[in-house]
Amino acid sequence: MTAVKGIDVIRAAHVEFLVTDLERSRSWYVDLLGFHVTQEEPGVLYLRGVEERCHHSLVLRQAPEPAVSHISFRVAGEQDLEALEQLCEAQGLPCRRVTPGEEAGQGAALRMQDPNGIPLEFYAQMDWVESLMQAFHRHRGPGIQRLDHINCGVSNVQQAYDWYTENLGFRCSEYTITDETTNRLWAAWLHRKPNVHDLALMNCRGPMLHHVGFWVENPLCLLKACDILAAAGWSHSIERGPGRHGLSNAMFLYLRDPDGHRVELYTGDYLTADPDLPPIRWLVSDKQRQTFWGHAAPVSWFEELSPLLDIRSGQKVPVSEPLLTERPQMAIY
Amino acid sequence: MTAVKGIDVIRAAHVEFLVTDLERSRSWYVDLLGFHVTQEEPGVLYLRGVEERCHHSLVLRQAPEPAVSHISFRVAGEQDLEALEQLCEAQGLPCRRVTPGEEAGQGAALRMQDPNGIPLEFYAQMDWVESLMQAFHRHRGPGIQRLDHINCGVSNVQQAYDWYTENLGFRCSEYTITDETTNRLWAAWLHRKPNVHDLALMNCRGPMLHHVGFWVENPLCLLKACDILAAAGWSHSIERGPGRHGLSNAMFLYLRDPDGHRVELYTGDYLTADPDLPPIRWLVSDKQRQTFWGHAAPVSWFEELSPLLDIRSGQKVPVSEPLLTERPQMAIY
Amino acid sequence: MTAVKGIDVIRAAHVEFLVTDLERSRSWYVDLLGFHVTQEEPGVLYLRGVEERCHHSLVLRQAPEPAVSHISFRVAGEQDLEALEQLCEAQGLPCRRVTPGEEAGQGAALRMQDPNGIPLEFYAQMDWVESLMQAFHRHRGPGIQRLDHINCGVSNVQQAYDWYTENLGFRCSEYTITDETTNRLWAAWLHRKPNVHDLALMNCRGPMLHHVGFWVENPLCLLKACDILAAAGWSHSIERGPGRHGLSNAMFLYLRDPDGHRVELYTGDYLTADPDLPPIRWLVSDKQRQTFWGHAAPVSWFEELSPLLDIRSGQKVPVSEPLLTERPQMAIY
Amino acid sequence: MTAVKGIDVIRAAHVEFLVTDLERSRSWYVDLLGFHVTQEEPGVLYLRGVEERCHHSLVLRQAPEPAVSHISFRVAGEQDLEALEQLCEAQGLPCRRVTPGEEAGQGAALRMQDPNGIPLEFYAQMDWVESLMQAFHRHRGPGIQRLDHINCGVSNVQQAYDWYTENLGFRCSEYTITDETTNRLWAAWLHRKPNVHDLALMNCRGPMLHHVGFWVENPLCLLKACDILAAAGWSHSIERGPGRHGLSNAMFLYLRDPDGHRVELYTGDYLTADPDLPPIRWLVSDKQRQTFWGHAAPVSWFEELSPLLDIRSGQKVPVSEPLLTERPQMAIY
Repeated sequence: MTAVKGIDVIRAAHVEFLVTDLERSRSWYVDLLGFHVTQEEPGVLYLRGVEERCHHSLVLRQAPEPAVSHISFRVAGEQDLEALEQLCEAQGLPCRRVTPGEEAGQGAALRMQDPNGIPLEFYAQMDWVESLMQAFHRHRGPGIQRLDHINCGVSNVQQAYDWYTENLGFRCSEYTITDETTNRLWAAWLHRKPNVHDLALMNCRGPMLHHVGFWVENPLCLLKACDILAAAGWSHSIERGPGRHGLSNAMFLYLRDPDGHRVELYTGDYLTADPDLPPIRWLVSDKQRQTFWGHAAPVSWFEELSPLLDIRSGQKVPVSEPLLTERPQMAIY
Repeated sequence: MTAVKGIDVIRAAHVEFLVTDLERSRSWYVDLLGFHVTQEEPGVLYLRGVEERCHHSLVLRQAPEPAVSHISFRVAGEQDLEALEQLCEAQGLPCRRVTPGEEAGQGAALRMQDPNGIPLEFYAQMDWVESLMQAFHRHRGPGIQRLDHINCGVSNVQQAYDWYTENLGFRCSEYTITDETTNRLWAAWLHRKPNVHDLALMNCRGPMLHHVGFWVENPLCLLKACDILAAAGWSHSIERGPGRHGLSNAMFLYLRDPDGHRVELYTGDYLTADPDLPPIRWLVSDKQRQTFWGHAAPVSWFEELSPLLDIRSGQKVPVSEPLLTERPQMAIY
Repeated sequence: MTAVKGIDVIRAAHVEFLVTDLERSRSWYVDLLGFHVTQEEPGVLYLRGVEERCHHSLVLRQAPEPAVSHISFRVAGEQDLEALEQLCEAQGLPCRRVTPGEEAGQGAALRMQDPNGIPLEFYAQMDWVESLMQAFHRHRGPGIQRLDHINCGVSNVQQAYDWYTENLGFRCSEYTITDETTNRLWAAWLHRKPNVHDLALMNCRGPMLHHVGFWVENPLCLLKACDILAAAGWSHSIERGPGRHGLSNAMFLYLRDPDGHRVELYTGDYLTADPDLPPIRWLVSDKQRQTFWGHAAPVSWFEELSPLLDIRSGQKVPVSEPLLTERPQMAIY
Repeated sequence: MTAVKGIDVIRAAHVEFLVTDLERSRSWYVDLLGFHVTQEEPGVLYLRGVEERCHHSLVLRQAPEPAVSHISFRVAGEQDLEALEQLCEAQGLPCRRVTPGEEAGQGAALRMQDPNGIPLEFYAQMDWVESLMQAFHRHRGPGIQRLDHINCGVSNVQQAYDWYTENLGFRCSEYTITDETTNRLWAAWLHRKPNVHDLALMNCRGPMLHHVGFWVENPLCLLKACDILAAAGWSHSIERGPGRHGLSNAMFLYLRDPDGHRVELYTGDYLTADPDLPPIRWLVSDKQRQTFWGHAAPVSWFEELSPLLDIRSGQKVPVSEPLLTERPQMAIY
């Protein structure tokens, strides 16, 4: 592969979910979880957390079937979009410029398909909107602060790891191997901003989106999210947790939105700013890796992911079985 | 005094505040603090916390001037109202029956003036209404759980203490004395339900209402109340705290409502069920008594109280200067 | 049955666990969970929570096999012990006086076997010891406040319910029935102090002790308990939760001590002081009854209980299969 | 001034406090607040928070008088130390290399005096030590996570601002001006890692150290710190808070160590990764700037700072009166 130097990715920025009943999704995300609506257009809602002054970190778009149209990263400037175009050309990857305003509030941007088939967007500018961070009287529900990270299932983690670290400057904070003998990369947590991750890659049928993680203020927000969802008749949205991750040390709660898209509420990982910070290694068989307290994740958490769309055809990206056959402990309930 | 045996007071139950702008008060109590409206009538709002299935724990009534028309205790049954009538007759205290429905949702009740002039109501029955305890999606703000206690300033604490303990079976959990030499009762925390208090009596210009305390779920609710009030332009409502009480061990926040009535948000005291539990003694000079962390309360907290109304005339009950001249440390800001 | 009037039970007070390795148990209860040692003697530890000024709320006694020697309730005074003796005589129940000091720190007391075979102790006096409530610098771990309740499995809940409510004045806050047609009592939460329960009775192979519940300060303590146990190599102690109970509304965490005795950390139920408060009814099939968020409890939670000892022979009380065959949803993991 | 390009400062990293009674300081920092000792030598303690794998973030050194010997930033590599030497030479600033091991656990480093006289250290390498992040059973007290930021008082904020932004690539997240007419820079919050600050500069008698801020896990840790300090007889250590900052939105608690050095416990600010994120402007007269809830800070908070030492002479750096005479509201208590 040909590396292109100097692409300055800032952070994971947003995802766009295709949803089959926009009003139902609005109720779930806005009325129950406390996302704020920046803008709405026929068939589309642009949402953000309370501390986000960028226009949106989540787009919900009405569609016949649930899917993910793209996952988006902020880059430092226009020069990074140009470097990305060169990278795509050099590596033969599909890409196209997104015109300012094509996605409301967003300026110069580019969409491309990574070598695994993940539809990526990079943008260099987005409109600033009102901060709601201190409009505490307008906060609702558990209180979504900001998008923190995106997690994708891929069939070949090592390949994807190489691409993101070599081409886009991602650094690894923690990773999982099959075992000490075979020592193959089963999952990796990669970051550009200095916490545990902007992008996680897991050995799964893929490429698919596993989940998008939003930061909440403190662990009580996770309990409150459960209380509110259960009270409103959405207890079946609660898939896993609340719990403490071994990997990342964060407190988590995994939810399934009305279309099955997985959303993690996440808080309390750690600073990874030092460039030589040694990544932390885990074995896939370690019961405390997923949940430090030893709780197993349910089968659905490993097997149900959101399909991704091709940036050109709009069709679902074909998926492959995972390369590695090792599986963590799972629960049936 | 003649004691009348067997009056079974259950707990502090509600207060009625006269307020000068009912819509402003509604906004403060309901929209910001999260009280729920059980019933409204022209000029009156009946409010309750989320765990309260009784009709109301706070009545707001439009009036030309702020005052407190009565403080109310639940008794076990009709027989207790009869015993209270006998007590009033024996002691020459003003009293009258309140007819069922005179106060919305309330059954048989009695109002009387205690020897200090505090307007008391006792009721034996109140309508049950929908529980909102688990309607978490309908909770707002810091989340008021229930009324916990009432605090009155009186000019002669010893006298009031004697009356409540001898006639109404109150027990003392904690108390404050002037000092070890003079050893005079400066304040007392009295309970019927087995936590620290249903009724506190403090050495103040009185009789006046010092505050009514509402239970919140956990200490983060206190921080959230501050955030919300400050965001909504009511930072001047925050009078004292958040902090930890030495006396009672509870976490507290004192607020002043739009008419200056003082409301405490309170959580985390302890069980006082054992009948022989030794009361805890404090000296008025102990800086950790009021706030365990050593913060002094502001002057306003000691000097500004709500006037009480006479149950017969509806006029303000005359007040006397406090008997004891000892004062705790106060802050000026 | 012959009821004996006027036995004034104050509250659930303590349990005595027989444990097979006292030092291992000490490490688990004291070093990890934060119980405080009031007194130790060869083979026995007397423990309490930080707010408890009574001598102990948990006794750990070295023994060849795990069991529960008695569960204990505080009564108001000596007259209640006498009334209990009369009750036993009238109903033909085994009972004996416990001499002051036979259990360290405890005064006049009585042990008896209830009609189900549960070994009960009632005591009228216990030594007061130093309060550690505000010795925050000496608190450890999640911070145990006080014993809250005791939960027993019995084969015939209705029979046990009748006995406790008719003879000992217990009141019911919440209960579970089989279904609306058969309408048989599957479980009941009974209280003397005015929160949800001092004693819960569940349809199980019994009589056995299901668990003893200790109050913690706030829900974060539950998360902290998990973190600490998992860090110390006891993640297998975490049996169920953290979660929100539907029934009781409390936040809970169920742990298994090194001998398998079940301990619940519990916080945030509600006040049940009003004598006419309507009990809340649940169906055993309601998934939100056990855990409001919809999580099923594991099979072990329903099937593994601690054996009780006969107060005369010291032998295990024989158990019977549960009368009712209805079972709630369970999880396998 | 001559700017030197390309100095890659990673983050605020540590401070060294001179303390007059090392055992008393150890007790305060280690036993009460929960810092962990990485290494101790005669007269020196090297401390870190639970998530820090670097050797230390706080050095306590026995000395006759309290002072701050240096504040330290991590840089990316050796090349940055060379660039800093060139900067010092170009600008005539005192500087010297610190040999690896001169400060235990630290590799190549450089000390210099900034134009204001602040003694800075920059290091490119520090030993990695055991992570205690998930050794929850070994955590104590409120739980210090990591150093977050350093705050200095300087007599000329604009001058210091220019130097740090132009030479070291600091970006401004929030700032305070005198008022809209005079529009002079009264304080600035500058960052390299993407949260609100690594270095704050305030208009004060200076240069002096105002405080060092350590991240704690959640706001309850602030309450717990107060509880523990007050219980242990150090309530006079609690100078300001707990509260919510307007500026930064973080929850804070300001403590004074046994020598008067100010330590902030801090949690919950926000992500500032986007390079074009508009800085937030505040007026010095805004009562919600310091504390969003409207509480005024005490006079001591503005007037008592720690002296800094000259890196060559070891003598106290001379201080000047602040350039700007505007003052925020202060409290007297």
